[in-house]
Amino acid sequence: MTQASTQEKPLNIINLYELADEVSKNMDKGAFGYIRGGAEDELVLENNRRSFNQKFILPRVMQNIETSDIDLSTQLFGIPLKTPIIQSPMAAQGLAHQDGELASAKGMAKAGSIFSLSTYSNKTIEEVAKVAGENPFFFQFYLNKNTEFNAFILNYAKQNGAKAIILTVDSTVAGYREDDVRNNFNYPGKFANLEAFEKYQRGKQQLTPSEVLVEAKQALVFSDIQYVKQLSGLPVIVKGIQSPVDAHHAIKAGADAIWVSNHGGRQLDSGPASFDMLPAIAKMVNKRVPIIFDSGVRRGSHVFKALASGADIVAVGRPILYGLHLGGAEGVNSVIEHLNKELRINMQLGGVKDIEQIQRTVLYTQTELETRFLQ
Amino acid sequence: MTQASTQEKPLNIINLYELADEVSKNMDKGAFGYIRGGAEDELVLENNRRSFNQKFILPRVMQNIETSDIDLSTQLFGIPLKTPIIQSPMAAQGLAHQDGELASAKGMAKAGSIFSLSTYSNKTIEEVAKVAGENPFFFQFYLNKNTEFNAFILNYAKQNGAKAIILTVDSTVAGYREDDVRNNFNYPGKFANLEAFEKYQRGKQQLTPSEVLVEAKQALVFSDIQYVKQLSGLPVIVKGIQSPVDAHHAIKAGADAIWVSNHGGRQLDSGPASFDMLPAIAKMVNKRVPIIFDSGVRRGSHVFKALASGADIVAVGRPILYGLHLGGAEGVNSVIEHLNKELRINMQLGGVKDIEQIQRTVLYTQTELETRFLQ
Amino acid sequence: MTQASTQEKPLNIINLYELADEVSKNMDKGAFGYIRGGAEDELVLENNRRSFNQKFILPRVMQNIETSDIDLSTQLFGIPLKTPIIQSPMAAQGLAHQDGELASAKGMAKAGSIFSLSTYSNKTIEEVAKVAGENPFFFQFYLNKNTEFNAFILNYAKQNGAKAIILTVDSTVAGYREDDVRNNFNYPGKFANLEAFEKYQRGKQQLTPSEVLVEAKQALVFSDIQYVKQLSGLPVIVKGIQSPVDAHHAIKAGADAIWVSNHGGRQLDSGPASFDMLPAIAKMVNKRVPIIFDSGVRRGSHVFKALASGADIVAVGRPILYGLHLGGAEGVNSVIEHLNKELRINMQLGGVKDIEQIQRTVLYTQTELETRFLQ
Amino acid sequence: MTQASTQEKPLNIINLYELADEVSKNMDKGAFGYIRGGAEDELVLENNRRSFNQKFILPRVMQNIETSDIDLSTQLFGIPLKTPIIQSPMAAQGLAHQDGELASAKGMAKAGSIFSLSTYSNKTIEEVAKVAGENPFFFQFYLNKNTEFNAFILNYAKQNGAKAIILTVDSTVAGYREDDVRNNFNYPGKFANLEAFEKYQRGKQQLTPSEVLVEAKQALVFSDIQYVKQLSGLPVIVKGIQSPVDAHHAIKAGADAIWVSNHGGRQLDSGPASFDMLPAIAKMVNKRVPIIFDSGVRRGSHVFKALASGADIVAVGRPILYGLHLGGAEGVNSVIEHLNKELRINMQLGGVKDIEQIQRTVLYTQTELETRFLQ
Repeated sequence: MTQASTQEKPLNIINLYELADEVSKNMDKGAFGYIRGGAEDELVLENNRRSFNQKFILPRVMQNIETSDIDLSTQLFGIPLKTPIIQSPMAAQGLAHQDGELASAKGMAKAGSIFSLSTYSNKTIEEVAKVAGENPFFFQFYLNKNTEFNAFILNYAKQNGAKAIILTVDSTVAGYREDDVRNNFNYPGKFANLEAFEKYQRGKQQLTPSEVLVEAKQALVFSDIQYVKQLSGLPVIVKGIQSPVDAHHAIKAGADAIWVSNHGGRQLDSGPASFDMLPAIAKMVNKRVPIIFDSGVRRGSHVFKALASGADIVAVGRPILYGLHLGGAEGVNSVIEHLNKELRINMQLGGVKDIEQIQRTVLYTQTELETRFLQ
Repeated sequence: MTQASTQEKPLNIINLYELADEVSKNMDKGAFGYIRGGAEDELVLENNRRSFNQKFILPRVMQNIETSDIDLSTQLFGIPLKTPIIQSPMAAQGLAHQDGELASAKGMAKAGSIFSLSTYSNKTIEEVAKVAGENPFFFQFYLNKNTEFNAFILNYAKQNGAKAIILTVDSTVAGYREDDVRNNFNYPGKFANLEAFEKYQRGKQQLTPSEVLVEAKQALVFSDIQYVKQLSGLPVIVKGIQSPVDAHHAIKAGADAIWVSNHGGRQLDSGPASFDMLPAIAKMVNKRVPIIFDSGVRRGSHVFKALASGADIVAVGRPILYGLHLGGAEGVNSVIEHLNKELRINMQLGGVKDIEQIQRTVLYTQTELETRFLQ
Repeated sequence: MTQASTQEKPLNIINLYELADEVSKNMDKGAFGYIRGGAEDELVLENNRRSFNQKFILPRVMQNIETSDIDLSTQLFGIPLKTPIIQSPMAAQGLAHQDGELASAKGMAKAGSIFSLSTYSNKTIEEVAKVAGENPFFFQFYLNKNTEFNAFILNYAKQNGAKAIILTVDSTVAGYREDDVRNNFNYPGKFANLEAFEKYQRGKQQLTPSEVLVEAKQALVFSDIQYVKQLSGLPVIVKGIQSPVDAHHAIKAGADAIWVSNHGGRQLDSGPASFDMLPAIAKMVNKRVPIIFDSGVRRGSHVFKALASGADIVAVGRPILYGLHLGGAEGVNSVIEHLNKELRINMQLGGVKDIEQIQRTVLYTQTELETRFLQ
Repeated sequence: MTQASTQEKPLNIINLYELADEVSKNMDKGAFGYIRGGAEDELVLENNRRSFNQKFILPRVMQNIETSDIDLSTQLFGIPLKTPIIQSPMAAQGLAHQDGELASAKGMAKAGSIFSLSTYSNKTIEEVAKVAGENPFFFQFYLNKNTEFNAFILNYAKQNGAKAIILTVDSTVAGYREDDVRNNFNYPGKFANLEAFEKYQRGKQQLTPSEVLVEAKQALVFSDIQYVKQLSGLPVIVKGIQSPVDAHHAIKAGADAIWVSNHGGRQLDSGPASFDMLPAIAKMVNKRVPIIFDSGVRRGSHVFKALASGADIVAVGRPILYGLHLGGAEGVNSVIEHLNKELRINMQLGGVKDIEQIQRTVLYTQTELETRFLQ
């Protein structure tokens, strides 16, 4: 991990696509391939981006909006947020920056939003909790066959102040990512929470971090949601939903929020764009629980469109790691600020001044433009 | 502004796309980026062009049309025009040519059509009025929070013979144009009308041009239309409409014409192509007031298609600045003449001989070609 | 015209697209630009090709077809043809080969099909008639304001054995072809038939070839069809139809055949693909008269698809000039033979053995494939 | 055939597309052109691939699937298979490897699946039978006008243990493959089964291998199916079906299975993608007989989608020859294993654990995603 960046500075961002180009020039090839890559032919990776361009925001005029009145604030589980944009959980952030999750957590705190800590982070929950301070963070969790591990880690998260558990359910096997095969990629760092578990077990029959990884549970069932809720005593967000039916079952099983995601195109490359599934899932969820959306968000307009299609909160992944690599905590904050800036312009020109008004905005497909108004 | 052109000559134009390529070779990079650029990913810029190609003019034969009988003349607000093609308002034309708006105004006069002068021009209304002479011109206006400025400038326009006010309503915040960020672009010239206001205020509490710019009104409301009508005593064209509903409200509020435009793709990059919205807006307007159309017009066929889709007048922006740069007033006239030439050929081959016949022509989408005739 | 080819040999043709590439390497740039080029953005040129790929021939098996039984023969106006593929009229074939129309006529005779002679040919009707011998040829005609010219030329055609008049109605003004403007292209040769007219007038008030050209009639009307029929006493094919309504009017006015064509994309660049209009025109014509089809035919499969979409005869233009340039009369024959070869393979694999069976074959769009069979 | 490979090793496969690139670098140009190539413009070759991307597998979660429980086994005609992926018949495998069909047969045996031997193989049925041992193989057959040949070869196959006859019906004439014309390609090896026939005839009126080839029957009829069944006494699979009607006629005529194929885009280039015809054919077949599918399968997801669209078995062609070239029998096995690996990941993420569950899975088009769930 000697290549990991030690940068710490705000970034002059033109747009988030160019940020990736910049990172690609000096990040370790294997690390960049792992972060950037998608599964197989990367059809979903491409489709996630394309899908946003298939829906139009109609420009509205004379809607009495002063730019200074535009308000991005919202809330999730009663937690006040300065922006509807939170961070998607991502493993091993030491790949991007020497301070890893500590810097990300600081950056998200500066942006007034939520940091999501991965089970497979390079820093412990405890370390992250310290730098997060008053700022809320969520803990992302992969269920394990080892119940002792489950109990330890969920308790560890709760004791250190995590506000919710993100239960990832779409990665019971890793997507077939060819860059990682080509680059013979392996995580170079240590998984700090697994080491914490190893230490905690001392004296008992011990499980090494590698053994914990191998024991990740594949045969997930909807009743696992209750199990996690009971062990953690925290709200459980079920992450990785693309099917409306699965969203329904997850809510019936106790999910406190649905996280619509196709893992940024890293899992099933034959699946649809995440944004294309959002309206149907939102219809099925029918406001029973909040919806968080991710996969492909690179523009303020994408945030707008996701909110207008049923999302309550929008999460961003890779660009935050790019910001982290280029500018540490400040870089992470710059990414969120840039998206906020684009979002505000889109709101002004789309004729809305707060998140609720975005959520009531109707988007149009090309076909709808040509037919709906002419009937 | 030393780089601005001093050329004065008619142009041999192959087509307007190549004109842009030619200009790109020797115009100052910042100036060219500002003129050419669109917002964000420039999706609308591209889509504006593409949209014209999705509608077909059916070739018609044996319609008894002598090319010499083809008549491009029309009128707007009773002003006779030699062509349905007028100029879109554009700021700071000194970027393209040392004579700026004076040369454009002369060029449009030579073409027998209307010049639209921007509030943020490099030449004053008074100067332009002098060169325009008998030829009609319109004045484009951004409403200001400073009511004294509004009163001054609208009176200044009227006194100098402007025939109508173009009230731009789609730019309460600037679109996010990345070339301008990359080039660190700033207007190099002075805003002549704002300086005229500064001079006019002498002795009172004074507003500098920069202060006027900052005070541009964002929270526009439909009743502002009446305010501008009363201050100016001139017809008010509401420019920047993409929503049929907004068109309706503007007419209810007193608009004398609707200018359908997405600002040439410079504002909301998530919006539709301007041409794709035209039929729905025309249906909503239902001939209550004239419709002016712009955004993406680069071919005589585009003019034809816009007229056949509900427009009464078609406006052109960037290509006129390119003509201005390469040939001054003569270059501006060459651009209009080239479009007229292409338009006449399209009319002959489409089987129509005047603007009214174009407006009654039915266009077809690919799907309609395959289904309408076969039912 | 010193660059014109004097080649005379059969060609080894891979496909007709590559033939164009080969010609482009050594034909005079202006001549190649004139022959290859389309109007404006060449959208129709591209669309003519694309349109064929939107319709599928369903492979059929076990249909009891011996390849040696496949029969391409057909007829037009009672004239027996060895192939359904005839030549489209094209002006000034001296551009492609020193023997110009004489070589083309010989090549088409060898192929057992019809040669179409342009009014603006480099060889006279008389010269062509001599080399054609027993083989039928048609004469293509542009109506002139000078009635003496009309009478002369139509009589000249009839006296020399032309079997039909092709009245071109889609070129009352030339399409805007940018290559010709760029290359400053002018016909280098003489128009032999116009010179014949000049000679014929000797002693009377004389019209030079250039004056005849200028006097081409633009204000065509449907009753002109009767005029041409009466002057020539020959069947009149109306060429350049893209509108079903125009096809109907032409038949009502006496047309003996309809030639569906968009002039190979050389005229109205905003129009549809010719192949896309064929089904609707065929439905309107309803077998009252034969339909000839051209524009974009480069493959045996295109011939198949045109015949299956309502055409009785399919015409080919540019590729014949390419064959003429590379191989003279033999080259022309090679082009037809190559198309015949591809057509036969398509027939065998499509499960049909003669032209009539092709005409009864149903083609499918992608959408129809996905829906028609599943209902 | 001196260039043919003698490699024997397992392959590190990234994906099957790259395998082709690797082969292209060192296989003889003519051989590679023959194996890789498609007909005419290779539209079907491209479309075969594209078609898979138009249907989506919806990711499913929490479906209680342990990866180790995923089961690829299935059966055909009661023959147990370790994978639903079998080999398509391909001629002259000596082009790819010195051991030709012997190595392929060994590789498929190792993969626990079926090898399909072509009539026009470089090794005899007898030789293949020896290396296949207990492992099942099918014999692919082109009907001949020479009934003695038919009787000989079908008996030869049966005596040597072939489990079924694959009657290819879509190649009564070879598709027009331009690479073969360009490369002046001819099969360099001998056709071992035709030589076996020559030897068998000794003493009678003899037919050389070339004469047998020339006498291949073109005028196939559906009753030929019974003829082959009676001569061979084996199940007959009719291969090369793209029309639902032809599938129906073949079953009525006694076909024991339908093999949906467009010959990998090598025959009628104007036809549809094979995958696009599968649902309609499956509907028509209505489970009366098993369906085998090929043409364009390069991903485990393609296998999944074909099975979910009505196929019972999926066949792969070219990639197996590429594996054969690069690694002999081991290379062939590596190709199947790689597809199995991708398929397993797709099953886990698509929420199914066996072939039957795949077959009950619903796929979605983009349009269905946008509409079906929202009604």
